[in-house]
Amino acid sequence: KSARVSFGSGSKGEEKDRKLIRYLMAHGHETPFEHTVFQFHVKCPIFVARQWFRHRWSSFNEISGRYTVFDEGEFYVPEKKRVKEKVNKQGSEVAAISDEEHAAFRARVEAESQRSVDAYKELLEQGTAKEVARIILPQNMYTEFYWTVNARALMNFLKLRCDVHAQYEIRVYAEAIRDMFFEKMPWTAAAYREIYLGEKEEAATPS
Amino acid sequence: KSARVSFGSGSKGEEKDRKLIRYLMAHGHETPFEHTVFQFHVKCPIFVARQWFRHRWSSFNEISGRYTVFDEGEFYVPEKKRVKEKVNKQGSEVAAISDEEHAAFRARVEAESQRSVDAYKELLEQGTAKEVARIILPQNMYTEFYWTVNARALMNFLKLRCDVHAQYEIRVYAEAIRDMFFEKMPWTAAAYREIYLGEKEEAATPS
Amino acid sequence: KSARVSFGSGSKGEEKDRKLIRYLMAHGHETPFEHTVFQFHVKCPIFVARQWFRHRWSSFNEISGRYTVFDEGEFYVPEKKRVKEKVNKQGSEVAAISDEEHAAFRARVEAESQRSVDAYKELLEQGTAKEVARIILPQNMYTEFYWTVNARALMNFLKLRCDVHAQYEIRVYAEAIRDMFFEKMPWTAAAYREIYLGEKEEAATPS
Amino acid sequence: KSARVSFGSGSKGEEKDRKLIRYLMAHGHETPFEHTVFQFHVKCPIFVARQWFRHRWSSFNEISGRYTVFDEGEFYVPEKKRVKEKVNKQGSEVAAISDEEHAAFRARVEAESQRSVDAYKELLEQGTAKEVARIILPQNMYTEFYWTVNARALMNFLKLRCDVHAQYEIRVYAEAIRDMFFEKMPWTAAAYREIYLGEKEEAATPS
Repeated sequence: KSARVSFGSGSKGEEKDRKLIRYLMAHGHETPFEHTVFQFHVKCPIFVARQWFRHRWSSFNEISGRYTVFDEGEFYVPEKKRVKEKVNKQGSEVAAISDEEHAAFRARVEAESQRSVDAYKELLEQGTAKEVARIILPQNMYTEFYWTVNARALMNFLKLRCDVHAQYEIRVYAEAIRDMFFEKMPWTAAAYREIYLGEKEEAATPS
Repeated sequence: KSARVSFGSGSKGEEKDRKLIRYLMAHGHETPFEHTVFQFHVKCPIFVARQWFRHRWSSFNEISGRYTVFDEGEFYVPEKKRVKEKVNKQGSEVAAISDEEHAAFRARVEAESQRSVDAYKELLEQGTAKEVARIILPQNMYTEFYWTVNARALMNFLKLRCDVHAQYEIRVYAEAIRDMFFEKMPWTAAAYREIYLGEKEEAATPS
Repeated sequence: KSARVSFGSGSKGEEKDRKLIRYLMAHGHETPFEHTVFQFHVKCPIFVARQWFRHRWSSFNEISGRYTVFDEGEFYVPEKKRVKEKVNKQGSEVAAISDEEHAAFRARVEAESQRSVDAYKELLEQGTAKEVARIILPQNMYTEFYWTVNARALMNFLKLRCDVHAQYEIRVYAEAIRDMFFEKMPWTAAAYREIYLGEKEEAATPS
Repeated sequence: KSARVSFGSGSKGEEKDRKLIRYLMAHGHETPFEHTVFQFHVKCPIFVARQWFRHRWSSFNEISGRYTVFDEGEFYVPEKKRVKEKVNKQGSEVAAISDEEHAAFRARVEAESQRSVDAYKELLEQGTAKEVARIILPQNMYTEFYWTVNARALMNFLKLRCDVHAQYEIRVYAEAIRDMFFEKMPWTAAAYREIYLGEKEEAATPS
């Protein structure tokens, strides 16, 4: 509807409106997509939140470690050990090791994280201010935030964070966000899949 | 609710929530107000739109003079002639003249605007492209746009455009926007009126 | 240099640095380009400035028609009459008419603009406030502004405004800006030309 | 100079220019301050960087823990133990304890941080990818980034982060930034100190 206002008219039916959406996206006219706004309540590890917050054209409000005590066991432990990727040297891939070895990796991460949390709690008990004690907490602690973002900025987030070069952990979140977005804005999603993902229109909108 | 997430808790009742809103605003913690988003469909003269579009932390989609023909008589004529203000030299104030003189002023503005519109239409009839012909149209022509803006950016708009230094024409729009905002977000409005306008809380929320 | 900081190292020589720039641009990692900032002093018609100011990730300060009197003859007149484009229906192309007919078109635009400027001056002489009188001035009046913009936002501006779909008048400005940009940041320019314009690296950086 | 363009004139001498700067700031006309751009290379603990990166109207490029190995001992340890503040309940204040007790606090933070770093290094030696191993590193690890910011956004940063409610660690950085800013833009600084800090002009610019 915001797109149509540039042409001074109302909707012209599904087929024409979908065509307009595709045209706008293909030619970089992205402002009409800013008028649809999404809001998410996200819980994720701090190192994921750090990547997320780099997306400046959106609004964040995070739970603050200055005022809130972190709960026991509230940290993220990867399912599998990952090693340096062979092809794309900057990423990582699941190590070709036994289940026991993966379990040993998990146990190590869990033990180290728990030790840090224990030390944090001890510091609190000794009267240390929360904003000081939390500095020794690891970056896999969970945090929570509200995220308000328009469809244009959301698509930009998806382009970068669903990408194979994104770290696995944020990619999982981005893919979940993407699925919700595709469900809520199917016409825009179809154009997005066609133009940015190279998928055929037919595949994107099965009857 | 977005504000509460920083403290890791839900609502704590009206009184405490209103207090929190006031506290956040008074201390410049404005991000929680970004999670409420407003959308307006505005019709205003181009010279007003030019001032409006300077507010970059928001989204605009305007009807385009490149594709749309402007309708006859679609221009703004001030009710009264205004002269240079005596105190605040940069503004203007209603001239101390007779009703007839005001009417003469209006007639002049109307005649000049109409002549420009007539010339524009003639250029179009001679086959001139719309995007070229419209360059001779005056700045009091009406335009239309969608405006999507969050409550924080909206309050910033109001601070600048409801101000006595703002040009009369945009101030009238800003005051109408302000009334809608006050109605939709009464608690935030009460804090806004108290902190920025110096009004007493009692006056702002009569029982 | 800003790009290198992500990898915790200094420059690695021209060849590797150029490769890094190309890699970053090709993969949508555009933030390193934000650390180089350009500043322009622009004089252009109001209808061009209106399109320019839509680029929100940059800073503008414009001469204000509320405080400044526009000078005589300070308006833009197109060299040639343009008509609706046949292929791309929304644009325009130079009309296939005689030089005399183009001259007649120019004379008409000039006469209408001058008439509006004369009426504006008369209103001022009758004591009308500047901010009121200027509303009847046409959109081809020249205005001036300072524009501060980083290289990332600048490239986005160029992508949209050097495009064949952009209106001729802003395209001329965008092309001039582009040439200055290419001269100041030759490595980034080479990557830009290769990735966005499809030019070969060889062509872009002749020995 | 950007401010003067709104009035269509050049500089009018120091006294008048300073007056203009004060007027603009006092009336919320902050865009002219966007045309002066600063660039900083910052090294600070991650929990400080997390607060810093919330300032979206600026550009950041950070060293990435996905690609870079953190060096030994590269973490921050507070000089003094801080406890919950009595007056402003959300902050902290130096504990009223002996030097030995402060030293014991420091030793504890150092030991915990070092253990985490040791575990991180061990994970790396076992082939764990850098982007995975770093998730157990504490938030007092140092990171580095480039920060490009205009004077308007910089002043907004200072208002929030030099404030008594800001956490001590970022306040120390903000005060250092402020001193550099005051030195580079003395006229703007004088207006800033007068309007936002309530200092007298005389005090701000001693002869």
